[in-house]
Amino acid sequence: MKRRLSHLTAKGEAQMVNVARKPDQARRAIAEGAVRCGAATLKLLRDGKVPKGDVFAVARIAAIQAAKRTSELIPLCHPLPIHVVEVDLKIAHDAVQIRATVETIGKTGVEMEALTAVAAAALTIYDMCKAVDKQMTIESVRLLEKSKK
Amino acid sequence: MKRRLSHLTAKGEAQMVNVARKPDQARRAIAEGAVRCGAATLKLLRDGKVPKGDVFAVARIAAIQAAKRTSELIPLCHPLPIHVVEVDLKIAHDAVQIRATVETIGKTGVEMEALTAVAAAALTIYDMCKAVDKQMTIESVRLLEKSKK
Amino acid sequence: MKRRLSHLTAKGEAQMVNVARKPDQARRAIAEGAVRCGAATLKLLRDGKVPKGDVFAVARIAAIQAAKRTSELIPLCHPLPIHVVEVDLKIAHDAVQIRATVETIGKTGVEMEALTAVAAAALTIYDMCKAVDKQMTIESVRLLEKSKK
Amino acid sequence: MKRRLSHLTAKGEAQMVNVARKPDQARRAIAEGAVRCGAATLKLLRDGKVPKGDVFAVARIAAIQAAKRTSELIPLCHPLPIHVVEVDLKIAHDAVQIRATVETIGKTGVEMEALTAVAAAALTIYDMCKAVDKQMTIESVRLLEKSKK
Amino acid sequence: MKRRLSHLTAKGEAQMVNVARKPDQARRAIAEGAVRCGAATLKLLRDGKVPKGDVFAVARIAAIQAAKRTSELIPLCHPLPIHVVEVDLKIAHDAVQIRATVETIGKTGVEMEALTAVAAAALTIYDMCKAVDKQMTIESVRLLEKSKK
Amino acid sequence: MKRRLSHLTAKGEAQMVNVARKPDQARRAIAEGAVRCGAATLKLLRDGKVPKGDVFAVARIAAIQAAKRTSELIPLCHPLPIHVVEVDLKIAHDAVQIRATVETIGKTGVEMEALTAVAAAALTIYDMCKAVDKQMTIESVRLLEKSKK
Repeated sequence: MKRRLSHLTAKGEAQMVNVARKPDQARRAIAEGAVRCGAATLKLLRDGKVPKGDVFAVARIAAIQAAKRTSELIPLCHPLPIHVVEVDLKIAHDAVQIRATVETIGKTGVEMEALTAVAAAALTIYDMCKAVDKQMTIESVRLLEKSKK
Repeated sequence: MKRRLSHLTAKGEAQMVNVARKPDQARRAIAEGAVRCGAATLKLLRDGKVPKGDVFAVARIAAIQAAKRTSELIPLCHPLPIHVVEVDLKIAHDAVQIRATVETIGKTGVEMEALTAVAAAALTIYDMCKAVDKQMTIESVRLLEKSKK
Repeated sequence: MKRRLSHLTAKGEAQMVNVARKPDQARRAIAEGAVRCGAATLKLLRDGKVPKGDVFAVARIAAIQAAKRTSELIPLCHPLPIHVVEVDLKIAHDAVQIRATVETIGKTGVEMEALTAVAAAALTIYDMCKAVDKQMTIESVRLLEKSKK
Repeated sequence: MKRRLSHLTAKGEAQMVNVARKPDQARRAIAEGAVRCGAATLKLLRDGKVPKGDVFAVARIAAIQAAKRTSELIPLCHPLPIHVVEVDLKIAHDAVQIRATVETIGKTGVEMEALTAVAAAALTIYDMCKAVDKQMTIESVRLLEKSKK
Repeated sequence: MKRRLSHLTAKGEAQMVNVARKPDQARRAIAEGAVRCGAATLKLLRDGKVPKGDVFAVARIAAIQAAKRTSELIPLCHPLPIHVVEVDLKIAHDAVQIRATVETIGKTGVEMEALTAVAAAALTIYDMCKAVDKQMTIESVRLLEKSKK
Repeated sequence: MKRRLSHLTAKGEAQMVNVARKPDQARRAIAEGAVRCGAATLKLLRDGKVPKGDVFAVARIAAIQAAKRTSELIPLCHPLPIHVVEVDLKIAHDAVQIRATVETIGKTGVEMEALTAVAAAALTIYDMCKAVDKQMTIESVRLLEKSKK
């Protein structure tokens, strides 16, 4: 099986993939990731004096805003109309779990938008908790589902 | 030990930390992360027909550009002058390893800039390899070192 | 009558409204607002040595540019193609009156784009006149008309 | 008294004010404004099923983000390091009241940053409530205090 | 023949051209330009120790990124979906030659996107070579071809 | 004489130059360029029904805005505080002449900011005149002066 990176020309130069002749289709992508935190941090987020509300609200907004600007961050991404970004955050036993769903109708998929949303939410949670937890890591950022119809 | 998230007010509202009274200091942060890839993808990057040059060049630029715009992506980050961003990429046995170093002279640290650089490089590598590898994950994005003097 | 904010989930979390299934329609919105100024400021703008031309030219450009970036400024707005932004500025007896009209063909209305254009024009006029007038206020920013067909 | 708009040259052309020779000083500005809403909207925000939390969280983030980008929105503003943005939102009898405080150490004041923060918060509240209230207006956006030392 | 600048109203005020009633058509534009350099600079780029790879890779990315943001840079440009940006760079006898091709399906042409891509590539090459060459000039930035169907 | 491009590592990878140890100095750069136009276009701009005012006002604003965002457009540029951007436009016998002066106090020069301002003004003039002149070219964009003290 011959495989080639579609973002590189035969000479190995970076390029955008030409999507001009692709049809507009309804597209959806779901990505997930996690911010691994200490138990004390999760407790602060879960039931402490510090309401989790705003940390998660800020992370959700960061994710939505980043998804809309994916083509500015990832050099070879196409600008796409974004029809919705949904961001779910929940506290698991050793991490905050992040899931982002992005939908559009367009000529190319939205997996990078979903992954970018997850990364931005993770970085924002990290930023807001870093004063109390020096050991956090962002883990397992990956695509769960990509579909079109 | 009483701990509070400095990005939240006593009422739990998100806030920027006021850094106006902090001194300007030379600050450095180093972050790392990895894009776990299949062996075939790494082979393509390492010695295949497809030169790794441009994939890594694009990822490096994405990282530098994202570091400079961290305060737009992470809602409560302060805008900072960025004096250098260094990005090292290397191919390990099952992943592309990313390391970013950021330096500034300013009133607050640059760990979010370093982590954002790593995340942007990882997302860009993902974007450029996703046509040939559907199983990649971004792993272990974390701060290695943070210093000031 | 039951009413719910469509930008909040049942749990009260912020969300984008999913517009993927809405039809593309021709949409127009008109918004207005005013910068209340002192008589001396209005005189400077109207017939003084200082030509009003450039103040208004700068405000008009600021309005057009802001309308195009509404989805970056208002977190839950959808990115939309903007087909035209018209900005009318005129000097009334105690204020500069601003009116902005925005048109697109898309899945959601452009009232936020029109309101954002008015706000940006108002802030720009404020910025350019603030050295001579410390008492300005921005007033009555509101939607005049919203239509689709 | 001769007065001239400092943002216009003698020929009436728009210009940035040259601040290169001004000293760095600690500067603060406070601005306020309001979104006039119907009683039902305020009730929804205050004690309804819909928690006010997230509407205000989103508005606060929009304000902070806009303050940091003021020099992109207002053409003749100087880019400034922003050391803190504080945003207070409260429900009054016929409006949501917004107050923003911005501090920096720099060569020019931050009143435009504070006013831009108020405008962005107001537009965001408008956006999130517009599905249930067609009569909102943004009122009385003005500078309350500006100081340096 | 009566001619009028379509970007100015009858009163001479700047305006966006209203494209709402134009059909969506496949559109392409090709622009070119050059960075005139000294022979030593071209030799460095061509066969020296310093690989030209990354200079050109960075310029290509800068061009693609700028093309996508044309409507932010050129005040009266419409935001457009960009379906591809191709950037060709080659070393001629006294200059680096730049050619950019942009395609979209939209209501207005992409010549400004192609010209903006060329300008950004030229400025980036200038930036990367300026330490060794103080005499560079950017020349002959122009539209080669514009078509729709 | 050994010469090396400071934006490339020994391995030829793109990098930002580390300016953390450079002193803050007052810096100024002046750049120029031209948009070559047909006589009819220049006549329209000079004395026609179409006032030149707004074309030049828009170009001037585009130049100022672009100068402030240079570090977003040119990948390896450092973000800098910009203390003033002056833009002079004049009509010569076969072209519109553009000159931009940028000043800052910082660790690195502002020649890229001045050149970027000239390029943005040129592209904007091109955009506003392209409906009446298909033969314009942007010429002789170059640095006139660069100083520090």
